[in-house]
Amino acid sequence: MSYYELCNTVAQAVEKTVLPLIGKTEAKTGMGMGADGTETERIDKIAEDAALSVLESDGRSMRLVSEELGEKIIGSKPEFTVILDPVDGTFNAVNNIPFFCVPVAIGDSDLSDTRYGYVKNLVNGDVYTAEYGHGAFLNNNMIHVSSRSYFPEMSFLSYSHHPYAVPANNHRVRRVRIFGSAALELCYIASGIFDAFIDMREMLRVTDIAAGKLIVEEAGGMVTDREGAQLETPLDVKQRLNLVASNGLSHNKLLELV
Amino acid sequence: MSYYELCNTVAQAVEKTVLPLIGKTEAKTGMGMGADGTETERIDKIAEDAALSVLESDGRSMRLVSEELGEKIIGSKPEFTVILDPVDGTFNAVNNIPFFCVPVAIGDSDLSDTRYGYVKNLVNGDVYTAEYGHGAFLNNNMIHVSSRSYFPEMSFLSYSHHPYAVPANNHRVRRVRIFGSAALELCYIASGIFDAFIDMREMLRVTDIAAGKLIVEEAGGMVTDREGAQLETPLDVKQRLNLVASNGLSHNKLLELV
Repeated sequence: MSYYELCNTVAQAVEKTVLPLIGKTEAKTGMGMGADGTETERIDKIAEDAALSVLESDGRSMRLVSEELGEKIIGSKPEFTVILDPVDGTFNAVNNIPFFCVPVAIGDSDLSDTRYGYVKNLVNGDVYTAEYGHGAFLNNNMIHVSSRSYFPEMSFLSYSHHPYAVPANNHRVRRVRIFGSAALELCYIASGIFDAFIDMREMLRVTDIAAGKLIVEEAGGMVTDREGAQLETPLDVKQRLNLVASNGLSHNKLLELV
Repeated sequence: MSYYELCNTVAQAVEKTVLPLIGKTEAKTGMGMGADGTETERIDKIAEDAALSVLESDGRSMRLVSEELGEKIIGSKPEFTVILDPVDGTFNAVNNIPFFCVPVAIGDSDLSDTRYGYVKNLVNGDVYTAEYGHGAFLNNNMIHVSSRSYFPEMSFLSYSHHPYAVPANNHRVRRVRIFGSAALELCYIASGIFDAFIDMREMLRVTDIAAGKLIVEEAGGMVTDREGAQLETPLDVKQRLNLVASNGLSHNKLLELV
């Protein structure tokens, strides 16, 4: 099974179990704390179980790093690490807001050695993929980041805990959106619909961003922390990150902003 | 034909013409300026034409206030005004981001005398309705605003032209989202998923908010301008509004924030 087939089989299994639960009360029965230290919704657990059973039947030995279970070694000598968020956008999914996805990445020991990234939009079926060194794709068509670098023409995805952006920084942009699924939003940077992604909440996990980061980079964009440093974060769901992603052209200007 | 049937027939006609165009290049061929002073995308014009043909064949005389055409009198003695945004969330629709809707309201002369509000989510088919004095409904089930009033537990929808919310106001909330379709986002206030909606860009039009405003109010919430005043804006697409909508409990605190 190729990496694509493995990721796609995982996504299909998640999709099949998750879609009947969207917006249903039973999706949000609390299940206690996940390994990442946040409350697990029932939909997350069900999705993770479905993914795990696909990976266990693959036959290869691998390490799984996933939001709820933390880490699990399948077999005796892992060949690679699967980094998974069973449902990215859980709040949306349980509230019937049509914006959530499954991100799956294949890597090794930290965020900088991801070899393969896969994100499936569970609402409209779009699939974003990237293999290290081979470009990024949306439904098998090559995608590229935008070429905008003038703030008043740029579209931002920008997370904060503060409800009202005061014009203290004097930067005005074309539009700001926050959809609540970082993995999918990073793919919008890769496909050039949006120009910049900022998340300063220090809440992102490696499972949220491993796939999207490679997809942005393979589409010609740039992903760093708020200091402009490469992310070499270990694949541990307890790690919390801030993130700046862009088409590259405006990256330094973005770092000044945050 | 009841108001519900009229609105629903309009929405079905829009849906049929719009869905095949989602994410397609032909959806975003510019069509010049609409009556509201913004660039018309082809998808908006096609949707409006479909809606107009439903209204013209209704038989009753009415006034149509719509984003692209501005105003049109159908027949000789209008019985009511239809306030329509053929596609709310056009940027999303043309970019294949699954978040856009059709809002239709029935009113008279200004935003304060709306009798009926209807919003259809074109992605998942959810229909929100409200008749003045008779409550608000999602797919025929009565809905009510949330009861949260403590900022750190509240979920906000909050628009700004500024990309990064600096913590100058010292208020920290549970989550902030910006989906890019105000009509549908107001319905999330009505159904209690979100607790507050703020838009200070002075860009909202009566066609964006007439339906959602009544739906929020009939669900027990409150909708005002940034000074806390009732919106008695004439039904003219050239008008630009700012808006604060909430479950009512936190409204004064929100007004202080903006």
